[in-house]
Formats: sequence, structure tokens, C-alpha cells
Amino acid sequence: MKDTWERSGTSKPPLSALLSVDEMGLFVDYYQLTMGQADFDAQNTSVITANYYVRKIPQGQYLIAAGLEQVVHYILNLRFTDATLDWLAARGDLHADYLASLKDFRFDGSVFAVPEGTPVFPNEPIINVTGRSRDVQLFETYLLCVMNFQTLIATKASRIVHAARGKPVFDFGARRAHGRDAGILAARASFIGGASGTSLVLAGCLFDIPYVGTMAHKFVSERPSELAAFRDYAAAFPNNTTLLIDTYDTLEGARNACIVAKEMAARGARLRAVRLDSGDLLALSKRVRRILDAEGLDYVQIIASHDLDEFQIDTLLGKGAPIDSFGVGTRLATGANFNPRTGEGAPSALGGVYKLVESDGRLVGKQSLDEPSKATIPGKKQIYRLTDAAGNYAKDRLALWDEKVSEGQPLLVPVIQDGELVSDFPSLHDIQARTAAEIEKLPESHKRLTGATPYFVALDSGLRD
Amino acid sequence: MKDTWERSGTSKPPLSALLSVDEMGLFVDYYQLTMGQADFDAQNTSVITANYYVRKIPQGQYLIAAGLEQVVHYILNLRFTDATLDWLAARGDLHADYLASLKDFRFDGSVFAVPEGTPVFPNEPIINVTGRSRDVQLFETYLLCVMNFQTLIATKASRIVHAARGKPVFDFGARRAHGRDAGILAARASFIGGASGTSLVLAGCLFDIPYVGTMAHKFVSERPSELAAFRDYAAAFPNNTTLLIDTYDTLEGARNACIVAKEMAARGARLRAVRLDSGDLLALSKRVRRILDAEGLDYVQIIASHDLDEFQIDTLLGKGAPIDSFGVGTRLATGANFNPRTGEGAPSALGGVYKLVESDGRLVGKQSLDEPSKATIPGKKQIYRLTDAAGNYAKDRLALWDEKVSEGQPLLVPVIQDGELVSDFPSLHDIQARTAAEIEKLPESHKRLTGATPYFVALDSGLRD
Repeated sequence: MKDTWERSGTSKPPLSALLSVDEMGLFVDYYQLTMGQADFDAQNTSVITANYYVRKIPQGQYLIAAGLEQVVHYILNLRFTDATLDWLAARGDLHADYLASLKDFRFDGSVFAVPEGTPVFPNEPIINVTGRSRDVQLFETYLLCVMNFQTLIATKASRIVHAARGKPVFDFGARRAHGRDAGILAARASFIGGASGTSLVLAGCLFDIPYVGTMAHKFVSERPSELAAFRDYAAAFPNNTTLLIDTYDTLEGARNACIVAKEMAARGARLRAVRLDSGDLLALSKRVRRILDAEGLDYVQIIASHDLDEFQIDTLLGKGAPIDSFGVGTRLATGANFNPRTGEGAPSALGGVYKLVESDGRLVGKQSLDEPSKATIPGKKQIYRLTDAAGNYAKDRLALWDEKVSEGQPLLVPVIQDGELVSDFPSLHDIQARTAAEIEKLPESHKRLTGATPYFVALDSGLRD
Repeated sequence: MKDTWERSGTSKPPLSALLSVDEMGLFVDYYQLTMGQADFDAQNTSVITANYYVRKIPQGQYLIAAGLEQVVHYILNLRFTDATLDWLAARGDLHADYLASLKDFRFDGSVFAVPEGTPVFPNEPIINVTGRSRDVQLFETYLLCVMNFQTLIATKASRIVHAARGKPVFDFGARRAHGRDAGILAARASFIGGASGTSLVLAGCLFDIPYVGTMAHKFVSERPSELAAFRDYAAAFPNNTTLLIDTYDTLEGARNACIVAKEMAARGARLRAVRLDSGDLLALSKRVRRILDAEGLDYVQIIASHDLDEFQIDTLLGKGAPIDSFGVGTRLATGANFNPRTGEGAPSALGGVYKLVESDGRLVGKQSLDEPSKATIPGKKQIYRLTDAAGNYAKDRLALWDEKVSEGQPLLVPVIQDGELVSDFPSLHDIQARTAAEIEKLPESHKRLTGATPYFVALDSGLRD
């Protein structure tokens, strides 16, 4: 069926929901194709390993690896369709022989990776991709954009959940996320990091995770009174009503919520919660709690949202705010790297890189004389994680892939071998459980919101040389 | 054809490139559906106007509106498929009668909007959507996520292009963008804001805009020598070679580039450019320029990239760095709201909102007693832009839609009427040209990177009352 756009006669459908898997061959930075052409011309047949890792963590001292499932799906399914190759051919810059070689592209190399939900640290290899040089470099842009984003968000969620001290945290961020995929993947990564659910229904559907909703100010302000709005909503959802009480005056809203709660109680139903979305959340939550309790509505919960992050949640709970759960939007779904306590900021991005570390058995890396911090540790590497007697993380060792290491748990596991998927992907619930168990083993000193200490990652002798 | 995932027997395909237009009915925050249910039960048949606007600009004093084409495509094509409705029905929270009403959903209202590429200011209506209450609220999440993101990026690009003083700026940000859509839309919005192109080939294909590529450090480090790498690349692209010279030692890289440039010249070809990607770009660009010029290679350009933003470009050019064009990645494609000069930061997001302003002819707004800055100016409004004798922006007036205003240019134009598309969408090149012409009319005092003065937006008497 033609969509409305086509019917209107506008020539080119704009990007919207029209992007298909067939177009993913072009989701590359152009240099990946120009290098491919030059490699093809130079008959570069070397087999290489490229390594995804993060040089510097923008906030805190650990990362939660996330995004592998999407990357693996992409690597296994990347194809260059005739339409894609014809379009490239018509541009004239790439040659027919190289483009013809892409027609049968199918990755036949291997991928080893740290499972999603695992805490990782700077310079640790999170994914190793081994294969023909020309093939391996094709994955760079998509791999980076998916891993950098989901790892950023899973980490942010983990910090926020840590600050919330067991109170549920929900992702409310789709409206501020950077487009459609970002909204969906932010919900996914937030869940991995410990969020209890999302407001985005599509994420609930795709990943089988809880989705939640309250009401908007619109619902209140288009009705004759706040009380009328609360009654309409409670009538529709007798068993799951949350009332937004800050449209006009939060305390008056709380009193109106009490009226409706009692009407519901008379019908044998219970008001679930009230939601605060503006103002001084500490003072308001305390006063609203008192209003509810004075009416015998101690079972009615208080949900708070309003430009929250881990720092504000920590402060609120530290000062005894009687808030039962948190909706976190912008600063979770964009992975804000801004610390309002210190004024320190950085772009909302994770600067992970995908670098050549080995070529035909030779260790290689970028030296970067002019900027040593951008150097790469050469060699295909494994992470070995050592625990103490209580099972807590003690330190990691990085070793060359073929080095014999007798202690510690190797973290990178086989995912693709000879181009075939060799591992099952866990459900998102299982990944979340893994994350929670692993983060529990990371000592508190590395998890503090501010002033956390770096985790020790040792280089084995083979790497130091 | 089954994809590799299905063949492997894993039950649910993960999100990757699998999302289709059929699933967009679920790209809503759940409250949009719960409010829809309550509206349905209460037989709310009111006709409303919702207004997209931005309360506060995170950086600088103007915004470049962007994203309308994607929003309009979504509004015109939003449908609820049987699969979507069956899934919702199975969850049990929404009722069969309401879900049945969504089956025939088709928007039959109107949309007025500011054309893409127009400078806009705080609290100005960028989009007015008028229609049945239940319909209009469905668009909130997608409209906000697409408009907030593209407007953020077009604005950031405009600032960066302004700082670059006529030197071309290219979007290199896909690898740090927040997923696939973000990479594509960042390229689109950057081009609107004045970027000369992108590194992302798919964006070049979808929007018919220039795409560019140089080489990665990988290409150099997997070869026996930097010189060998440069020769391989120059052989493949005799007419369009840019050499990345910072893999080992930038000045040595510049000397190697000179050798290859002369070999190319002997074959009648010209080296196009060298690229710096690390280190002190001011000092290095000057020394590299001298090395090139000493060899008579004054035609070889210098391209710089390396965590750039408008502030750094401004500083580099202010100090006379001989850089001919800039590749800007992370801070452009994520819209970083961080000022390294002042240390002031904010999340990389635009907090635009979509608020009810009119219902069945009655002006409505959120009062927000506890947080006046979150109040909404009631009423469906038009922007009138006044220019001075030279044609430059003087001030804007906001007036109620039906108010008679004799001066100024009305900015919101009809896009959808009675559910039909009534305007053509310009090409991205035309939008870029419009942006450039409009931003030229905005006085410099509002465009300065720091300390810019707010543009004056007056409220007409009808709104002040």
C-alpha cells in the first residue's frame, strides 16, 4: 500500500519508519568503503582483530556493557543489496570490481565479547572481532553507535538505581531521546542497568518488559476541574490509577486525590499513587505524605519526576523524602554526563572506539606521539576477573589472547565462530538479573556517585613488553 | 527470507533494522493510551489545539526549527494494525471498545507549523496541532523526540558553522550518535544548520547530500609503513585523496604526505588534503602548513577533527590556525550543551514540550503554582516576525490565532488541513539555503557564542490578559 506521502506525489519518501534492513549496508562512514576499495586494489588479504573498548569513563568508575545483541544481529545479517550497490556504482567513486566483491558479503570470522550486563573498565576489550581486514572494518560505525549508546545508558541507569536505594526507577525519556531508535534502546539499556520499566509501550512490546503510564497535565487542564479529571481517570482504571497532582497547586491536588481515593475505597478499589512533576520535591513530598496519611491513605504511593538524575535522587532520599518511586526522563535517556554538584560536564556520549590491535598475528596499535592518551594497547586480549574470598571483585588482568593465565575468570566468550552464531542470547530479564548480581560484587568504593576510586586493571607481562 | 537470527532458532528477533512502520502505533508513552481510554469512557469529544514549543534554549539565544517533515509523515501515516491492537488487548488493561476505535484511526485535523530552517525563540509555537483531543495526544512522544532532537542538532550545527567563518564543517558523528536514527537524523539536521556534508553514506543516500571520507588509523597501522599506506590510498583515489597523518607522529606524517603528493603530481594528480585528528591542533596545523608550503604544496588543504565544537573552532581560527575545513563528531551529533570556556553544562537534549493550549475554543494552560517557569501561555497562537528597514529581524509578536495583526510576517503556515497534506516539502538543499538566508537576518548580537543577548518576543494584548 502506498503511504500518504507517496499518494501526495512527493518524490522521495523521507526517513521516518521507512528505513529497512536492506539499507543498512550504507550505515557506514564513507571511509570504511574507500579503505575497502584501497584494500581491494592492494589485494590486502590480512586477517585482523579489531577491539571495541572505552578509553575514559565520562562519569564514575565503571561501565555496564550493553548493546551486543543488536551488534551481533547486524554483523550476521549485513548484506549489500543490488539497489545499494547500484546506487554506489552510479556515484562513480568506487570501482565496479570492488562493489562486485560486496555483493556476496557474508561475515565468516569470529566475535568474542563480554556478555551484556557485565561491569567493565577503561581499556578493557568489550568485543573482539576477527576476520578479513576489509570485512571487519565495515562494522565500525554501527557497532560503535549501538554499543556506545546502550553502554552509556545502562551505566547511567545503574548509577540512578544505586542512588534510589531499592526504590523503583522508571525510564520516562523517549520524548527527549535522540530519535526513535534512541527511545527504544534507552528503554532496553535502562532495564539492563536496573530500571523497573519504561513509559514507552513499544519497548515493552519488543523486549517484554513492564511499561507504565500515569496522566498528562492536558488530561487535567481540559476538564472543568481537577476533581472531574481525577474521577474520569479513576473510573477508567479502578485498579491502577495514578493521579498527577501538580497541574495547578500540588497540595490542593493532594486533597482532591484524597477525595477520589475515598470514593474509590467506597467502591472497593484503591488509589495506587499520586505523582509530583514540578516544584520542590522534598518539601512537597513530605507535605503530600502528611495529607494522605491524615486521611488514612497510607497505602497511596508517591511517584516523583522532574529533571531527575542520580544526584538529585540521592539528595532527596538522603533528606528523607517519602517518595516511593521515580520517573527519570531526559538525564537517563540521553545519558547526561553532568554533575550538578560540581558543575562538571561532558557531552552525553560514550567515546568508545573500535581499533585494530592485531594483523596476521602481528600486534599493532596506534602510538599517537602527539596525544599519548589516544594510544591503543596492541594485541587481541582477554580479561581475567579475580575475586576475593567473599566473591567480590578484587582486580582484573588483561592478557594476550594466547597467554596462559591460571587465575581469574575469562570474561570474553565466543559469540560468532566461522560466521555462525554460537551463543544464545538471554532475555532482557536475565540480563538485568546478571547485571544486578555482578554490580553487587563490585565494592561500594567504586560505585560512589562522587569520589569513587578507580578499579585496578593490571596488564600482564606480554602486554607490558 | 529468514534472517540469521530466525534460522538460529532464537525466538524473538531483537530490535535492529527490524522495526517497521506497522509498529509505530506503539511508539507512545503509555499514558497517551490510558488517557485515551479515559477520554473514550468519558465521551470526551472536544476539539483541541496542542502546541510544540521550547521554554528554554540550552545554549545561545536562538533555535533552528527542524524535524517537521518526519513529524508530518508520522501524523499522516500513523495506523494501529491488527497485530498491535491484538497485543494491547491481550494485556488486558485497555478495553475492547476503545481499542476497536483505534482500528480506523486516521488523523483528520490540521497542522500549522514554522517551516524547517527558521530561527525561533523561547515560548514561540513551532507546531500547532488541532483535532480531536484523543487523536492529538497520540502524537506527543514521537513529535517531541523527533523535533527536540533535530532542532537541537540544527541549532548546534548553526553555531558551529557560524564559528567556522565560512570554512566548511562536516558531520562525523554517527559513531557517537544515540543509535541508528540519531546518526541519520543528526546528519540531516546538521545539513539544515549549515554543515557541508556528512561522513554517513546512508544519510547521503536518503537526503541527497554530500558525504565524505578520509581514512582510519587502522589503514595506516596495518601496513608496513605510513608511506606504504599513503601510496595504497592515493593509488585507489587519484583525484580525491585525503591522508590521515597523525597515526604515529604528525610532522613525520606531513613529510610522508609530501612525498606522496609529489609522486601524485608526477602522475598529473593532486593530493587533496591531509587530516589532523589529535594533539594541539593550533600548533600542529601551523607546522604542517609550513611543511607543505615549503614543498610547494600550497594547494593541499588541512582538515582537522578531534572532539571539536564551536568554542574550539572559534579559538583555533581566532588564533590563525591554517585549517581549511572541520570534521565535527560527538559534540555535533549529540548536541552537546557544554561550554568548555565557562564550565557550564546541561544534558545534551532540548526540553521542548507539547502542551494543550485550547479546548473547544476555550483558552487553557498549565498554571503550575509550584513552579511558574513550567507554566504554559494559553491559546492557539501565531508568530509575527517584524523586520527593520534593512530586512533584519527586529522583534517577534505572539498573538492569538484569530487576533487581527497588521504588522509582521506570520510564521506558522498550513501543512495539514482536514487530514490532507497541503504543503510540499522542500529538498534538504532548499531548507539549508533558507536557514542560511534567515540566520543572516538575525543580528550578530543574538548569535555570539557567549554573552549573546535575548531576542525580543512581545505578547499581544489578547495573550497578556
